[in-house]
Parts: sequence; C-alpha cells; structure tokens
Amino acid sequence: MAMGTSTRKLNIGMIGFGSFSHFLAKTMMKQGHVVRATSRSDYSHQLGTNFIRDMEEFMGLEHDVILICTSILSVSEVVKSLPFHCLRKPTLFADVLSVKEHPKQILLQEVPEDSDLVCTHPMFGPESGKDGWKDLNFMYERVRVRDEDLCSTFLNIFECEGCKMIEMTCEEHDRLAAQSQFVTHTIGRILSEMQITNTPIDTKGFEKLVQVAESATNNSLDLYSGLFMHNRFAKQQMKNLESALQRVKRLLEARMLRENGDK
Amino acid sequence: MAMGTSTRKLNIGMIGFGSFSHFLAKTMMKQGHVVRATSRSDYSHQLGTNFIRDMEEFMGLEHDVILICTSILSVSEVVKSLPFHCLRKPTLFADVLSVKEHPKQILLQEVPEDSDLVCTHPMFGPESGKDGWKDLNFMYERVRVRDEDLCSTFLNIFECEGCKMIEMTCEEHDRLAAQSQFVTHTIGRILSEMQITNTPIDTKGFEKLVQVAESATNNSLDLYSGLFMHNRFAKQQMKNLESALQRVKRLLEARMLRENGDK
Ligand SMILES: NC(=O)c1ccc[n+]([C@@H]2O[C@H](COP(=O)([O-])OP(=O)(O)OC[C@H]3O[C@@H](n4cnc5c(N)ncnc54)[C@H](OP(=O)(O)O)[C@@H]3O)[C@@H](O)[C@H]2O)c1
Ligand SMILES: NC(=O)c1ccc[n+]([C@@H]2O[C@H](COP(=O)([O-])OP(=O)(O)OC[C@H]3O[C@@H](n4cnc5c(N)ncnc54)[C@H](OP(=O)(O)O)[C@@H]3O)[C@@H](O)[C@H]2O)c1
Repeated sequence: MAMGTSTRKLNIGMIGFGSFSHFLAKTMMKQGHVVRATSRSDYSHQLGTNFIRDMEEFMGLEHDVILICTSILSVSEVVKSLPFHCLRKPTLFADVLSVKEHPKQILLQEVPEDSDLVCTHPMFGPESGKDGWKDLNFMYERVRVRDEDLCSTFLNIFECEGCKMIEMTCEEHDRLAAQSQFVTHTIGRILSEMQITNTPIDTKGFEKLVQVAESATNNSLDLYSGLFMHNRFAKQQMKNLESALQRVKRLLEARMLRENGDK
Repeated sequence: MAMGTSTRKLNIGMIGFGSFSHFLAKTMMKQGHVVRATSRSDYSHQLGTNFIRDMEEFMGLEHDVILICTSILSVSEVVKSLPFHCLRKPTLFADVLSVKEHPKQILLQEVPEDSDLVCTHPMFGPESGKDGWKDLNFMYERVRVRDEDLCSTFLNIFECEGCKMIEMTCEEHDRLAAQSQFVTHTIGRILSEMQITNTPIDTKGFEKLVQVAESATNNSLDLYSGLFMHNRFAKQQMKNLESALQRVKRLLEARMLRENGDK
C-alpha cells in the first residue's frame, strides 16, 4: 500500500456515534473526508455533525465506506437490523470493534455479497491517541476485498497519520488481544476496585498502574464486558490471572514459613 | 534544609554492597564523598571500590555516616551482629530499606545512644533512576537527630540531585507503600508468572504493564518477600487484591447472565 496522503476523499457513514466514533470522525474530517453518522441515541443537535436519524435514509446515502462503531455487545443486533436493501451501490463495510472474530462472522453473514469487507482494530483511544496517532498500532484483516483502491484509501486514513499498520487474521488478533488488552483492562478494573490513588511517595511503576486503572475505567463497562464475552480466548486469561495470583501468594507464604523456621 | 550542593564531603560506610548500594555509591562518589563498603560477599576485587572485609576494621574507620543497605530479610541479623564497640566517634546511622518500621525499631534498639539515626527510602532504583534522580521521591524520618548539620548534609546528597524530599513517619510510609509499591511488585510478579510479553498489537496500557512486570522481576525475590513479611500493612493489601479480582469476575459473570437472559 502506498504511504502518504491519498487525494481521494471518501464519503464515510458511521453506525454508532459514541465516544470512540467522535474521536475517529474528528481526524477523518480533518483529512477532508465527509462523515455522516447514525446511532441509537440522537446526536443531531451536536455541532458540526451530519447526523441522520432514519436508518433507511442513512443507508441510501451512497457512502463509499460504512464503518461499524457500535458496542461489542450490540453489534449482532445492530447489524442484523440494518436495511441493506436501501444500499444504492456496493459499499466497503469496515468495523473497529475491540474483538474481531465476532463482528467478522456477523458481517460475513449479513453484508450483501457484492459489498467488500475489512475488519480493523485501532489499538488506541481518545486518551492514548489524544496527541496524534503516530506509532500507534492499527490491526486489520482484508476479509473480502475486490475494490483494492477503495480499501487502500480507507486504510490510508490511519497509515498517513503514522499508525503502525499490522495485517493479521481476526483469530490471531483475538488470541493476542486476550493476553494483552483484556489483561490490561482487567488489571485496571481490579486496581480501581481497590481504589488505588496517587500517594506522596509513588514509585514510577505505581504511577504507571494508576494510569492503567484510570484508562480502564474511562472505557465503558459495555466495552470491557464485550472483551470478555466475545473474545473466546479471554476466559482462559482470566483463569491464568487467578492462578498466577495464587502462585505468587503461595510463594510468599512458603518463603515466610522458611524464614520463620530459620529463626 | 538548604538546597544546592553542600561543600562538606562525607565519609560514608555502606553495609551491604548489592546492586542498590552500587547504584547509590556511584552518585555519592560523583558528588565527591568517600564511600567505603562491607558486605557478606567479597567485593574487594571490584574496580574502584574501597571494600573492607573485616567488620571490626570497617567499624573503626571513623565514618561520618554508616548506611545500612542490606536486604530487608537480613537486616535484623546484620545489625545485631555489628561490633558497635569499635566505633571511634558518634556516627549518623541511616538506612535505605524499602520497609521502614522494621529497621527503625531494630536500629533504635541496637545503635548506641550517642549516635544519630535517620530512616530513609529512596522510592527509585537502578532502572527508574538510570537517567538521574530528578523529581523522584525520597522519603525520610529524622528518628534521632542532634547533629543537624551532618544529617542535612547527608540528606542533601539526594536533594541536590533533584529528589522530591518527603518527610513522614516510618509508620505512614509503610501504610502508603503497602498500597502502592507492594501492590505494584505483586501485579508485576503476577504478570510475569503469566509470562506476558510484548505482542505486535500492544496498546499503550499493555506496554506499561510489561514494564511493571520487568521491573518487578529485576528486583530480588528477597526484596519482594521482605516487602510482604516486614510491612505489617502488606497482608491486607494482598487480601484486597484477591477480593477485588473476585468482584471483577463476578461483575463479568453477572453481566454475561443478563446478556444471555436478554436473548
Ligand atoms: N474507546 C476506545 O478506546 C476504543 C478503541 C478501539 C476500538 N473501540 C471500539 O469502538 C466501539 C465503540 O466504543 P466506545 O468507546 O464508543 O464505547 P462502547 O460502549 O463500546 O460503544 C458505544 C457505542 O455503541 C452504541 N450502542 C451501545 N448499545 C447499543 C444498543 N443496544 N443498540 C444500538 N447501539 C448501541 C452506542 O450508541 P449511542 O451512543 O447512540 O447510545 C455507542 O455508539 C466498540 O466496539 C469498541 O470496542 C473502542
Ligand atoms: N533495588 C531497588 O530498587 C531498591 C530501592 C530502594 C531501596 N532498596 C533497598 O535497598 C536494599 C538493598 O536492595 P538490593 O536491590 O541491593 O537487593 P536485596 O536483595 O534487597 O539486598 C541485597 C543485599 O543484602 C545483602 N544480604 C542479603 N542476605 C544477607 C544475609 N543473610 N546476610 C548479610 N547480608 C545479606 C546482600 O549482600 P551480598 O551482596 O554481600 O551478598 C546485598 O548487599 C534493600 O533493603 C532494599 O529494600 C532497594
């Protein structure tokens, strides 16, 4: 794929207009693309938004790309209820969900055969991406692509911001993301359950944990539940975490017995 | 206390010459202080070290400051076996242990009444302090100080490197450090038990956790066991961590039941 800013401007339709969509739309519009959105809630009074309430009207707008940005938990219901018959031309369907096998399967089932399909996961959000997207990871799988030029132009939105473009299967993504992102959210949620906060004597390591806790709880509980329920590798990671905690505890207890025995 | 580099050069005797002592000694010598050390193991063939094997000889060297840098687990045995009768003059005893009530109590018991006592904890190590000590936290309690000038000159070693000097009691330190540093080491050890490593699709949050895991295992298991066994607030934090994990797990399970019930 060619690096650099593409001159072709896309009409992008977003389904689901929550905080992550707002964050993406800002950069897309900055690049000159036209963004129109629809969502469960009404965002039509929001400044600078092309918001379309009616789903049939939205689907008939001749978007080049329709981007699914809805929550993991609702994606099945949302995609299954889309009025695909209103599409006026073959369209590139893309999604940004934080799990990948689940939306891939649903989109393969529901999206009309003549429309293309690319599944993506920008590995960043409004917090980690607030100073730009340079060097942040962007995962994608070209699931069903015939219009190479359109797909490349869409991916170029991320590439020309400096993202590290990583092509891998949705399955491989879910395996790796369960070990990394799901564990990170879980540690963050555990730490905020413990109500950790900065102290006057923080170490650098503890400061990092406070940040991990803050960013975990900045994300919706829907998102976290989605990572657990719709990534088939997540449950095993939860078990791994529990048993690792038990091993560390046993290590300390054995050490304590030995020390006390030495006395 | 006056800021800036003090002109008075100190004779500093270090007891325990492991990796953290080496790290401290480098900066102290850079500042022009004279550092001599003794330890369980023999470091006499190490370049640039004034290493004294014989403990009676070491204690008779007229140090201004004797700095206890031994492991938490061994401090009781080490301090109780020191030949204090060899001291030729009142000396400032200081320690850098990562728990504070425990060495304070031992030093108060063992150090001769005419010698002063300051308990400290530099909240950083060879990794977090590798590019200098600026803005890193340094905790201390002036436990028994008559020679104000000597104690200030000693603390100034850290202050003039830019450390944030935090005066608090050893008890307050242990309460806060159990919530912060002990939890950080524990999370780090759990994550390395899980063998987490970087993936091609790391998020920024996960990168932080990999660093926390690496730095936890760069520290000795003695150090971590010491944090647990000799900080009376640590056990409660271990319980808090376990129950927070259970709460997060139950939250996910309840959410999953509800979602599946909705279908
Ligand atoms: N936040 C991040 O850092 C990040 C990063 C990468 C990928 N993602 C992915 O991006 C997507 C959006 O994430 P988010 O952070 O904005 O929060 P989210 O809680 O995962 O999703 C919120 C979005 O889902 C819609 N939604 C929720 N329940 C719905 C339902 N029952 N029916 C129809 N729509 C529903 C919301 O619509 P309304 O706003 O109209 O209520 C909103 O647009 C998720 O799939 C997430 O995994 C997020
Ligand atoms: N590492 C850090 O980042 C850091 C930061 C702040 C404070 N501290 C504190 O600094 C002290 C030293 O830490 P460390 O990182 O160097 O590792 P450590 O494993 O906590 O301590 C190693 C030191 O303890 C001595 N030692 C261990 N067992 C002994 C025994 N049975 N009898 C006599 N001496 C014994 C070792 O002597 P030999 O080398 O001669 O075997 C070595 O000098 C600890 O109290 C730690 O809590 C460390």
